[in-house]
Amino acid sequence: MSVMRLGHINVRVLDMEEAVNHYVNVNGMIQVHEDPVGNVYLKCWDEWDKYSVILSPSDQAGMNHIAYKVKDDSDLDSYKQRIADYGIEVEEVPAGTLEFVGRALRFTLPSEHEMYLYAEKEYVGTAVGTTNPDPWPDGLKGAGVHWVDHALLMCPFNPEEGINKVAEVTTFMSEVLDFYLVEQVVVGPDGAFQLATWMSCSNTPHDIAFVGGPISGLHHLAYFLDDWNDVLKAADVMSKNRVKIDVTPQRHGITRGYTIYYFDPSGNRNETFGGLGYLAQPDRPVTTWTEDELGAGIFYHTRELVESFTTVYT
Amino acid sequence: MSVMRLGHINVRVLDMEEAVNHYVNVNGMIQVHEDPVGNVYLKCWDEWDKYSVILSPSDQAGMNHIAYKVKDDSDLDSYKQRIADYGIEVEEVPAGTLEFVGRALRFTLPSEHEMYLYAEKEYVGTAVGTTNPDPWPDGLKGAGVHWVDHALLMCPFNPEEGINKVAEVTTFMSEVLDFYLVEQVVVGPDGAFQLATWMSCSNTPHDIAFVGGPISGLHHLAYFLDDWNDVLKAADVMSKNRVKIDVTPQRHGITRGYTIYYFDPSGNRNETFGGLGYLAQPDRPVTTWTEDELGAGIFYHTRELVESFTTVYT
Amino acid sequence: MSVMRLGHINVRVLDMEEAVNHYVNVNGMIQVHEDPVGNVYLKCWDEWDKYSVILSPSDQAGMNHIAYKVKDDSDLDSYKQRIADYGIEVEEVPAGTLEFVGRALRFTLPSEHEMYLYAEKEYVGTAVGTTNPDPWPDGLKGAGVHWVDHALLMCPFNPEEGINKVAEVTTFMSEVLDFYLVEQVVVGPDGAFQLATWMSCSNTPHDIAFVGGPISGLHHLAYFLDDWNDVLKAADVMSKNRVKIDVTPQRHGITRGYTIYYFDPSGNRNETFGGLGYLAQPDRPVTTWTEDELGAGIFYHTRELVESFTTVYT
Amino acid sequence: MSVMRLGHINVRVLDMEEAVNHYVNVNGMIQVHEDPVGNVYLKCWDEWDKYSVILSPSDQAGMNHIAYKVKDDSDLDSYKQRIADYGIEVEEVPAGTLEFVGRALRFTLPSEHEMYLYAEKEYVGTAVGTTNPDPWPDGLKGAGVHWVDHALLMCPFNPEEGINKVAEVTTFMSEVLDFYLVEQVVVGPDGAFQLATWMSCSNTPHDIAFVGGPISGLHHLAYFLDDWNDVLKAADVMSKNRVKIDVTPQRHGITRGYTIYYFDPSGNRNETFGGLGYLAQPDRPVTTWTEDELGAGIFYHTRELVESFTTVYT
Repeated sequence: MSVMRLGHINVRVLDMEEAVNHYVNVNGMIQVHEDPVGNVYLKCWDEWDKYSVILSPSDQAGMNHIAYKVKDDSDLDSYKQRIADYGIEVEEVPAGTLEFVGRALRFTLPSEHEMYLYAEKEYVGTAVGTTNPDPWPDGLKGAGVHWVDHALLMCPFNPEEGINKVAEVTTFMSEVLDFYLVEQVVVGPDGAFQLATWMSCSNTPHDIAFVGGPISGLHHLAYFLDDWNDVLKAADVMSKNRVKIDVTPQRHGITRGYTIYYFDPSGNRNETFGGLGYLAQPDRPVTTWTEDELGAGIFYHTRELVESFTTVYT
Repeated sequence: MSVMRLGHINVRVLDMEEAVNHYVNVNGMIQVHEDPVGNVYLKCWDEWDKYSVILSPSDQAGMNHIAYKVKDDSDLDSYKQRIADYGIEVEEVPAGTLEFVGRALRFTLPSEHEMYLYAEKEYVGTAVGTTNPDPWPDGLKGAGVHWVDHALLMCPFNPEEGINKVAEVTTFMSEVLDFYLVEQVVVGPDGAFQLATWMSCSNTPHDIAFVGGPISGLHHLAYFLDDWNDVLKAADVMSKNRVKIDVTPQRHGITRGYTIYYFDPSGNRNETFGGLGYLAQPDRPVTTWTEDELGAGIFYHTRELVESFTTVYT
Repeated sequence: MSVMRLGHINVRVLDMEEAVNHYVNVNGMIQVHEDPVGNVYLKCWDEWDKYSVILSPSDQAGMNHIAYKVKDDSDLDSYKQRIADYGIEVEEVPAGTLEFVGRALRFTLPSEHEMYLYAEKEYVGTAVGTTNPDPWPDGLKGAGVHWVDHALLMCPFNPEEGINKVAEVTTFMSEVLDFYLVEQVVVGPDGAFQLATWMSCSNTPHDIAFVGGPISGLHHLAYFLDDWNDVLKAADVMSKNRVKIDVTPQRHGITRGYTIYYFDPSGNRNETFGGLGYLAQPDRPVTTWTEDELGAGIFYHTRELVESFTTVYT
Repeated sequence: MSVMRLGHINVRVLDMEEAVNHYVNVNGMIQVHEDPVGNVYLKCWDEWDKYSVILSPSDQAGMNHIAYKVKDDSDLDSYKQRIADYGIEVEEVPAGTLEFVGRALRFTLPSEHEMYLYAEKEYVGTAVGTTNPDPWPDGLKGAGVHWVDHALLMCPFNPEEGINKVAEVTTFMSEVLDFYLVEQVVVGPDGAFQLATWMSCSNTPHDIAFVGGPISGLHHLAYFLDDWNDVLKAADVMSKNRVKIDVTPQRHGITRGYTIYYFDPSGNRNETFGGLGYLAQPDRPVTTWTEDELGAGIFYHTRELVESFTTVYT
């Protein structure tokens, strides 16, 4: 496995000033750059690369692209070949196409999302440095999120018409990009259809997740917090800032993580995800959630899906 | 990287009944097997393989061997060659040599510790299963540890006589076994000597650690707990059971983790290690602790080493 | 002030077996007695008096009575006089009328709830004893609640028709029973009407609370938990036991406490209330919540009342 | 009981600049006043009266006086009589003798500490206000302590010579000032001697505590924190500020509270005390710690007294 992690996500926002205020003062990111066309670049205090979120001005919320960082530059050549061999068109873009990023591969996932792979991004360092570091820096704002942890992408799913982009993209991620399946929701007779999958390229329960819905889109981007107490603080911060909370602090059955779902001012769903959950490993058996317990999988305490979970996204 | 994790550790104990009581009722492990010569095998509730600790009756405490699990059986062939090429004698032992374990490689680290690599161990499953699992099982005992997380091995270190087994074993782990260096302590003029290293084969801050001392030995084996609150519960459990605590709940500067150091009845040091700390990655720059801040690296709150840290081990 | 605390609450349940299972295995109370007519008496591990909840078989859920313990037997004489002087009929019942309880006063609050005052109840001790006690006992079940903390009583409220039993009972509790007002919600023009009050006879933010609604009833009885982490554990326990949760873990603006609202099998609302909130004191100024921020007062994270809060009670 | 709480404590410091830095940036208090002779007055964010700590410049650390607030002005008359009747000289000082404070009683405890009682202090309000308040304010510094919670005073204790000022002051506090005994340590044959007592005038496990030692002095003043997690944050803050920690985060057996003992730059011991512990009540039986378990009473995890506990104080 040589995809290391989610490198950044490019999100469209309707009002840049409001958006920056949200990502800085609520989430606690740091603005590091603004490019000539008005895209704003931000990083979390515990990340060492230049940025992990790009906000792009637009009249429609949603995700432009998601980018993963691979370990070595040579991995790009290998993945380029494997993606092409799989039958997906892949383009190599030169260094600087993504600002502060080296050469990259661009392609469209079977779920219709644009993805980049890259091996180099300008290094700037975490807020605590590499010599005798403190465990956390002074002056954190808002929820003080550590890093962008994962994203959940909505994928066209209509098994009656033979459409299941969740299954398709899961196969692609596994066979071509070396992710492995950690948890899944199966529905239909004998659990015939993968409605949702959580996949890892590391040892966390998910570096990316896919859920079926009417159309392709962004369900949420998630930030890491240490634990349940930091989730409480995050919820308090959201209340102080009048952030619209979709789902208040609760445990996911899937991943065991502690969640808050909430919206940025443009309606893009964010998540603060607390705790490791468990250490994912390639030989850990896949956890399967059945249709009757799907609610408990997503929201362990209520054991019921809120309607907004599958219908509201960007 | 195809070493996945610490698979098990074989620890010598002076009184088996007391030892089993400690590992079961204090740590919260489950006894799964006893072999004809009196070795007792235990697992944690959140582990899926058959066991992660072997207790062996002895008249001297300490570690017999440490074993890591690799991803694929073919990795064993590859590592066998690489170990031999490095100039270290390596023996392949047949399946069953380690009970419930497939064929394995046995060799001695430059730090004089015996290590095994294996790819297969009997699967028994976690206590919560793989279908619609609860986040934790009922009936946990003691601290309810999740899994064996890492071990810290003491290595001969005497730079005045040109001896630094920490540096030697770190090089071996990196060049041959594909671990990567995450944090280090350097001492001496211009930090010339690696006194201690923390290395990962996954995305946790350490799957193994090495510290210099007068002789080779076991400093501690560590269990994972979710967070600071579980560390408090563990400390309460230890008090109830009159466990000898070496270092009460405190944060490590190194790894940021929450620790308790304590001893099993034979004097082998255990650790409950709480929290992820941070997500280690191959491109995350190595954190370096200098000699003057070594104390804060080990014990962040007191910023001072307790003498027992480097002198008491088995 | 010589009312010390909520001594017990008598709740009606539809199915005693299910109810006992809930109060024992979910809440973690201990059954201590069953009387000849089928009432079941329970206590929490951290309480020293004989019981704090009486479950009474009935075909309608709700509260029969609520009882507060006063400091000295002579307080009963004083309160008897003061209640009568206030114009409320008060009856003295002999020892044993309430099982294991000394002589008591019985009267009806302006809010139509039956209340008892008593000075003596059989002492049985906490689960950890009084000599060199551990901080918590082994073998706790479910949420392991510490004690019955408070109750919230619904009071007829219809200001258009000149009815405000919240204000009436608040005045009574203050003038006659020496409770003091800690927080309040005011509504209407210039906040003319007390819609809800939180009152203390100790140093906790509330020993009793009153909220206006269409009819008199029991909104909830609440148990104390140490903190936000114990609230998480409680929510997990509820999920495991398929308890119907009304409001998942969230902070109250009022009292700052951490709440879960959930229902016993008969539909009586329970609460686990985590944390001290703050130390109430007679000279601490009353906190007032205005109509426009009422939602944030009750549910600080969503800042919105759920409809069930004011319409569903027993 | 009409003593409500510890109102303030007057501590002597050797270097005012260093001291203010400590009480503001480590503890998180707010400087509210400096008087003409250089005394500095501070309050915590969650207190509503003008100040709770007075720092006085001196060449010797320690406590000048401790002051408790009573509920009503008329209580002062009552207590004046009772103190005098008990045989202790008591002086009434006019309003303003203590800055921002009304008339007060001044007397010396049997333990040789100077104590004030007062009923009025200038009201300034908490940092979150009284209308629709947030649960915590923005911009907190350091540990962000809530309030001054209690103090522990060292009392001459030499039973061989018939000296036990712990017992004497405990009797006085109980008989004259209406405090009640919550926990005690007894030593000697048949536990004949009260070595230490914890007393409450509210519902917290201690508003004042007394421990026997060679001479009279101040053992520590303690601040309230919500829970174990805030204690961790406080310890991290201390490390960042290079504060000398006496005892790292640990549970007290006595009171069940979570402690850190640490020193201000002058050597006065401070404590962050986390959690309610339990709700003290006049009818809760006294908890007694015996000589053989004294260590567990003070430090529940190690079950051993550190030598500094009884020998180092100001």
